[in-house]
Amino acid sequence: MRRQRLSDQPEAWVSYLDRIAEANNWKQDGYRPLLVDGHELGQTSDAFAASLEKYPDVFVIEPNAVRLADGLSSYDERTEAIAACLNDIRQTRGIHGWRNENYPVGRTFERPVFEIERAAVPLLGTRGYGVHMNGYVRKDGGFFMWIARRSLQKATAPGKLDQMVGGGQPAGLSVRDNLIKECGEEAAIPRDLAEMARPVSAITYRCVRPEGFRWDLLWCYDLELPASFVPVAADGEVDEFMLMNINDVAAGIRETTDYKFNCALVILDFLIRHGFVEADDPDYEHLVTGLHPRF
Amino acid sequence: MRRQRLSDQPEAWVSYLDRIAEANNWKQDGYRPLLVDGHELGQTSDAFAASLEKYPDVFVIEPNAVRLADGLSSYDERTEAIAACLNDIRQTRGIHGWRNENYPVGRTFERPVFEIERAAVPLLGTRGYGVHMNGYVRKDGGFFMWIARRSLQKATAPGKLDQMVGGGQPAGLSVRDNLIKECGEEAAIPRDLAEMARPVSAITYRCVRPEGFRWDLLWCYDLELPASFVPVAADGEVDEFMLMNINDVAAGIRETTDYKFNCALVILDFLIRHGFVEADDPDYEHLVTGLHPRF
Repeated sequence: MRRQRLSDQPEAWVSYLDRIAEANNWKQDGYRPLLVDGHELGQTSDAFAASLEKYPDVFVIEPNAVRLADGLSSYDERTEAIAACLNDIRQTRGIHGWRNENYPVGRTFERPVFEIERAAVPLLGTRGYGVHMNGYVRKDGGFFMWIARRSLQKATAPGKLDQMVGGGQPAGLSVRDNLIKECGEEAAIPRDLAEMARPVSAITYRCVRPEGFRWDLLWCYDLELPASFVPVAADGEVDEFMLMNINDVAAGIRETTDYKFNCALVILDFLIRHGFVEADDPDYEHLVTGLHPRF
Repeated sequence: MRRQRLSDQPEAWVSYLDRIAEANNWKQDGYRPLLVDGHELGQTSDAFAASLEKYPDVFVIEPNAVRLADGLSSYDERTEAIAACLNDIRQTRGIHGWRNENYPVGRTFERPVFEIERAAVPLLGTRGYGVHMNGYVRKDGGFFMWIARRSLQKATAPGKLDQMVGGGQPAGLSVRDNLIKECGEEAAIPRDLAEMARPVSAITYRCVRPEGFRWDLLWCYDLELPASFVPVAADGEVDEFMLMNINDVAAGIRETTDYKFNCALVILDFLIRHGFVEADDPDYEHLVTGLHPRF
């Protein structure tokens, strides 16, 4: 498929590899690492870095980096100082999608070193976390996957195709508990059925999207559902659920950009794990290593 | 588990992460990239690089690299020139385990740019390829895996635990056909059963072993077997097959070095894909990214 690329326009990308490329389209040029105690905890665009120059007690702007000021050494000190800057920026130039919801910031989810408003995550380029679940059905000798069409009202990727269940990972809740909560809210999957979901993988990527820099980890779950189960769009985030033949899903991932960029990778990982990509595929190594880059 | 490390001695490593660390223990110090047309196609120890200085028409030894001489531009020219050097080295200082079997050399398995004797692969540090299959059984509400104990006569890892089936990947045979052949040779699995094996993953690693530098890709297959099937050690490479409870297999991977270093990673990948590692495990991201590094 790789050799069928028609042009450099994303809409013409027609290979599994193109989905990985789209989700890893970030280049250092135009961005500076956000350094905290010498560790890269984010990536900030040159433009946003310029707007941080007003706060030299909090952010030290260098030609090739943005450093958090040395004096800010505790979790609470950092959180409060950065919140004051972000609130000021919000009032002067605005920050899109402000939610009054704090997200933890760190190299890994378990070891945060401060918190920031969720809407600032793509601006400071800190890590994001989510949990996605593939719901599938085996019946009549075939293999099917439940696919959600995102509401046209969603702020990101309206109308795109998505996993049956997916959502951001807040602090203070286990990944498993968050998944079970999302199962109920998004697809009306009862708890006893949701508890049968199995953790099976995680994908990672770095890319530039309209909202800014994305540096995400998504935990992936699989849930085999009885053929009799029909999900119900419960919270308005999904317009419809469709039970699709896995070969049609695979073709959609390979040949279209109908799927939300990161949901496409969660499905590609599923296709590999369930034997729907041949080991003899010349792209196999790049697919497997491309789904799980270490940054 | 990470915090239970008892010492720096490998035998005391007691975490899944330690299996990944062992299979990725290589450092650039003491090694030089083998460059062909500017591409890194291997890693050669300083000691072996010194023994290549006798052949300046073939190998150009630089302080930080070994370059294949520019005049060698075709597949056959490279293959013949390198074979002459290796044969000379074999006669003067010996090369362990010479097999008169050529392996393809390239950045990927599908695009080789020359061939070398198999025994020279860890000396020039070129890529190696293999196929491994997890054979598992669901019965009595439990989950079991067939584990092989390697023959004490094997040149590498005698007596260590291994997948049910595994082997090197020669050129000129598809990965799938090679797997089916190995299924018959190593475990007497009939073709119609072996054909039900599914490609599910690949693992990659770089390490230094007694035989030299290893830079491998292993394609991983799963085969669910009927409870009535019993493998038979057919070709003398396996001393015995054991049907082990998956929890005992997991404990063995986590807490011992009983398993051959790369087979441990193939099983760890299986444990993750089948839901035997919780997404909430704080090591989860490092396990998933550590099994599939891109080099």
